[in-house]
Amino acid sequence: MIKAAVMGYGTIGSGVVEVLNINRESIAKRAGDEIEVKYVLDLRDFPGDSIQEKIVHDVNIIVNDPEVQVVVETMGGVEPAYTFVKAMLEAGKHVTTSNKALVADKGAELIALAKEKNVNFLFEASVGGGIPIIRSLNSCLTADEIEEITGILNGTTNYMMTKMSDEGLEFEDVLKDAQNKGYAEKDPSADIEGYDACRKIAILTSLVCGQQIDFEDIHTEGITKISAADMKYAKKMGRAIKLLASSKKTKDGYLAMVAPFLISSKHPLYPVNDVFNAVFVRGNVLGDAMFYGSGAGKLPTASAVAADMVDIAKHLNRNILVEWSSKKLELADFNKAENVFFVRTASGKAEIEAVFGSPAYIDAGIAGEIGFITDAMTEEAFAEKVQNLNPLSVIRVGM
Amino acid sequence: MIKAAVMGYGTIGSGVVEVLNINRESIAKRAGDEIEVKYVLDLRDFPGDSIQEKIVHDVNIIVNDPEVQVVVETMGGVEPAYTFVKAMLEAGKHVTTSNKALVADKGAELIALAKEKNVNFLFEASVGGGIPIIRSLNSCLTADEIEEITGILNGTTNYMMTKMSDEGLEFEDVLKDAQNKGYAEKDPSADIEGYDACRKIAILTSLVCGQQIDFEDIHTEGITKISAADMKYAKKMGRAIKLLASSKKTKDGYLAMVAPFLISSKHPLYPVNDVFNAVFVRGNVLGDAMFYGSGAGKLPTASAVAADMVDIAKHLNRNILVEWSSKKLELADFNKAENVFFVRTASGKAEIEAVFGSPAYIDAGIAGEIGFITDAMTEEAFAEKVQNLNPLSVIRVGM
Repeated sequence: MIKAAVMGYGTIGSGVVEVLNINRESIAKRAGDEIEVKYVLDLRDFPGDSIQEKIVHDVNIIVNDPEVQVVVETMGGVEPAYTFVKAMLEAGKHVTTSNKALVADKGAELIALAKEKNVNFLFEASVGGGIPIIRSLNSCLTADEIEEITGILNGTTNYMMTKMSDEGLEFEDVLKDAQNKGYAEKDPSADIEGYDACRKIAILTSLVCGQQIDFEDIHTEGITKISAADMKYAKKMGRAIKLLASSKKTKDGYLAMVAPFLISSKHPLYPVNDVFNAVFVRGNVLGDAMFYGSGAGKLPTASAVAADMVDIAKHLNRNILVEWSSKKLELADFNKAENVFFVRTASGKAEIEAVFGSPAYIDAGIAGEIGFITDAMTEEAFAEKVQNLNPLSVIRVGM
Repeated sequence: MIKAAVMGYGTIGSGVVEVLNINRESIAKRAGDEIEVKYVLDLRDFPGDSIQEKIVHDVNIIVNDPEVQVVVETMGGVEPAYTFVKAMLEAGKHVTTSNKALVADKGAELIALAKEKNVNFLFEASVGGGIPIIRSLNSCLTADEIEEITGILNGTTNYMMTKMSDEGLEFEDVLKDAQNKGYAEKDPSADIEGYDACRKIAILTSLVCGQQIDFEDIHTEGITKISAADMKYAKKMGRAIKLLASSKKTKDGYLAMVAPFLISSKHPLYPVNDVFNAVFVRGNVLGDAMFYGSGAGKLPTASAVAADMVDIAKHLNRNILVEWSSKKLELADFNKAENVFFVRTASGKAEIEAVFGSPAYIDAGIAGEIGFITDAMTEEAFAEKVQNLNPLSVIRVGM
């Protein structure tokens, strides 16, 4: 019998307890032993709930109980999660977390500490919810050099983009709808400003290059400027607007960014709609692959945490190699990145062509404006050119 | 330095040697040691090719060389692959294979033998080429009960279906085209009759249920009866015709089949076109997930074999648990399976409604015939009803 503790009995934490119960038998079979939750750490009490008897309010009860071998961290946020997780690893306990903020910020350090203590620090659920993308990068696609990894990593914004596209609604209206459905928080900035996707691509890029990527270094744009009019042009082009978190290996190093893109109907990410997530991976021998699934939600995310627990149960006395050193990797200069840009402007063709030569025009039948697509050019070159046009909107064209 | 041998220097075998060279450094890093091919077993010689110095014609040279720890089997077919692989495992060598015929037929036995000898028998490349579906089922989705696994597992037929749909061509014409492009063999029956997909779903189902599924027990239909007219109706319905290999957990046990299906544009498998493969998985807590990629081809398949070699290098002294006992699992009775059917017939509505009540009609504008969709009914009930109509074609509607 393997004794576990869960820190944080919110949506994910309670989901983990639920999954361990629902699939108790099959999990025990695959783990080689039964996994039992001995403690649940939470500030709250849950009177009347069967979990109450396992509730503790003092983290040291778990730290000091040698019987506890596996600890699940589902509190979210960097602190106190970081302090607690560190204490668990130092006490020789394995840890799995769903906490992307913690992993993006302290991943390298906690991986090193786990290695030093010959335990494991796993975080499958921190990116892509139930999609097994972390384990795929660590254990499956090991014969490849990953040249590109591009994901739809935030279900809330993908739901919003899908709804704007399907129903022709404006941003504010779909945001309200997403909040009413519980997909978006009262303060939605982490989702709609791209911060959530940014932390996730920082984690994936760190795993691909084996070094520390600071999420603050990643150029990040949200979807707040996307309008119903933009969607009209997208349809006219046969493209979809998706918030993509992307990381590419270039001759100048890794180039990472988060921004809305107009993607082609031929791209595997094009049909990924609603709250679903997907990660597109290009390997130098594998070619193109994609992993699709529920990027959030109680049970899918809990399923990933529980899968980490099974992996830990199979490696109780051995550290699973995760290549992610704390040595910081400088990303390639975003300003030098080449992109193709879609621009909407009220300016006339003469003004446009004076700046951009003869671009490809798109007329979505909106009076008083025109859209066009530039040639490929660097971000800095585009920024300089476009300022002569006061654009109504700018969206990169890609994939 | 880990010494390896490759049995069969055809497309995949030579691809493995190529991948080990292209990504030598990163593979060594992940494997924890360099992997070097010491022997290549083939009946042929390759004068002038740098591989010639490693060519051997006698399998016993490999069996009897204690230095060889890992053996790659890429010969294809059950014999002599089976005899050779067995000899390698008995000699205490790890084996990885891309050979679906071998795995479908002898998988359980070879997994048991590997376990007994405390080595590993891995076969990631036997299903879905470069798509890491085997490792995902074994090591990633371990917290779930898999309720359904449905795949587009044959690239040749998917290319043909895509081309028929895009260009309105007839079966014979796209078959010729596929043969000219080298996607289909001179004798294409393994692909177009569904035998290839059948072996692959047998392997996946065995891994999901942990017991032996005999591929001969799986109801298998190919795509040879699909016509340009069928594609017209599919378009009218907003659906695509795909050869699906499917396995579902029902109250009566596992139900497995291979057949063309009319799938909805909302299904994740709908946009999977050309030679790409994809595997849709439904877990009881994970929900829906999909794995997409190159299902065949030299380098993608070799990438999966090389990833197995890395996994073996990380488990040289330990058997990786693969749940697949030789205990045979009886599949649920196909005749009792409930499906919805699309039928084309020259019969009149009166005759149709005399048999099927009032079905949903589809008119694709083809003179002298009509299409309709039945309610859900068992295979045996449908077979009995439809014989009164002499149908022009029958395709199941699903997903």
